[in-house]
Amino acid sequence: MYPDHLVKQFNDYLEQILDHYRQVPGALREAICYCVQNGGKRLRPVLCMLAARSLGKDVKTVLPAACALEFIHTYSLIHDDLPAIDNDDLRRGRPSCHKAFGEDIAILAGDALFAEAFHIICKHQAGSAQAKLSVVQELASASGALGMVAGQFVDVYYAGKKISKDTLDYMHQNKTGKLIKASVKCGAILSRATDKQIKGLCRFAANIGLVFQITDDILDITSNAHCLGKTAGKDSKQDKNTFPKIWGLAKSREIARQKVNQAIGALEGLGLDSGPLEEIANFLLTRKV
Amino acid sequence: MYPDHLVKQFNDYLEQILDHYRQVPGALREAICYCVQNGGKRLRPVLCMLAARSLGKDVKTVLPAACALEFIHTYSLIHDDLPAIDNDDLRRGRPSCHKAFGEDIAILAGDALFAEAFHIICKHQAGSAQAKLSVVQELASASGALGMVAGQFVDVYYAGKKISKDTLDYMHQNKTGKLIKASVKCGAILSRATDKQIKGLCRFAANIGLVFQITDDILDITSNAHCLGKTAGKDSKQDKNTFPKIWGLAKSREIARQKVNQAIGALEGLGLDSGPLEEIANFLLTRKV
Repeated sequence: MYPDHLVKQFNDYLEQILDHYRQVPGALREAICYCVQNGGKRLRPVLCMLAARSLGKDVKTVLPAACALEFIHTYSLIHDDLPAIDNDDLRRGRPSCHKAFGEDIAILAGDALFAEAFHIICKHQAGSAQAKLSVVQELASASGALGMVAGQFVDVYYAGKKISKDTLDYMHQNKTGKLIKASVKCGAILSRATDKQIKGLCRFAANIGLVFQITDDILDITSNAHCLGKTAGKDSKQDKNTFPKIWGLAKSREIARQKVNQAIGALEGLGLDSGPLEEIANFLLTRKV
Repeated sequence: MYPDHLVKQFNDYLEQILDHYRQVPGALREAICYCVQNGGKRLRPVLCMLAARSLGKDVKTVLPAACALEFIHTYSLIHDDLPAIDNDDLRRGRPSCHKAFGEDIAILAGDALFAEAFHIICKHQAGSAQAKLSVVQELASASGALGMVAGQFVDVYYAGKKISKDTLDYMHQNKTGKLIKASVKCGAILSRATDKQIKGLCRFAANIGLVFQITDDILDITSNAHCLGKTAGKDSKQDKNTFPKIWGLAKSREIARQKVNQAIGALEGLGLDSGPLEEIANFLLTRKV
């Protein structure tokens, strides 16, 4: 079961944050709101909130960090969808940002969301200055030149070229894995987890990050645009390097199952209330969207 | 006189920072280096360093913040030059990033530089966690949805439309003014300036930010691509709203002179070693590049 009540709690908080942007000029504000209000599973916020809960903290305490994570994720989708990159017209069942607002505003809306992610941590997140700075560092590192951008670069650059299993791993770890890991880690840092707990939670996150990506690749083959809310079959059309392409469909499913077990195993013996995190791991394996 | 020795000191430090990006994959790393090594006046780093010096601190102590400021400035130029925005082929006398590396890599190189700006503060800047967090907040706020991006949006959105003097002010304050102000303010925060000193230095910066922009607008009319290292006459070709267009050339020059006097006046009575900052203000009025 996916924790829809947390999604609702997060979406309510998001509205409060968006309220701070009333002074942002016209179409730029509309584009920002259009993109972040565009639903979705809110996986990164939910992971951040569940990490806090697993450590006995109220999920409310990490809502600003959860929001920063969603802003970064949304910015990355906006830029990825641009004609010069993945050229995708559809996102979460609606026209992607540049289709709705034009390419110039899409670039700027992405840039704005990225900046505001850091601003939200500084302005709204509770905690010691050191903890907040650690969160900033985690977000910057996960999304930077040796993180998300590097993964996206490899994805674009090697489309149509054959890559090794190591390069596929590198691509996924960076493109999606590091921000998913940061989601759990930021929740843990702000909830004053011990080093051992942070390490275990990061191993959990690294494994479910891969599960997420493998399922994503499989759904691109086996699902359709109506179910996905985004263009299906794009990977093969763009000759992208995916798990099923490199490993085959059956072996990809088997790897995903193994990773779920490794993720759940990583939470053992840490004194965590880990039930909801385990449920998320299983959800990511069986999700249809 | 422009403080070229500070530019050299900054460029040397920049090389050390770029050395940390050896692991960044191929063309992405090349694009990042191509853009940040592309010279320029390094105005924002120099302002940050001079703010520290005016408070009796070694300029070395703020080099990471200076580097973060230059990364943000460079990222904004890369994205501004994109075909969907200003569509500029020339930057600092060389092909702009998307001309040299393609539009996809230019978008990603800009994104990477923006993330790395925050990463550098967390990883390399000395100072208390609170001071560094204040710097992060200043950078995020200056470059975000109510800062640089808002200014750029207004610039693009109102090209070809008549705007009021208030909107022109809004555009410049946000597009260039806030990051110039942040340059001085970050240097001051890290040098433990008093609130009164920070306020005076910010007034100085707000005024020279306008001087910078007015001179920029004037040079676009009176200079040529060979001198500027970027396309001249673009503002009028794109029907951009500039100071000379709204105020006329002579009145624009007069406003710039007034702003220099106001900038220098703002530094009085603060116990600062303000000579080099005054020189910068005068340089910005008379610069030819």
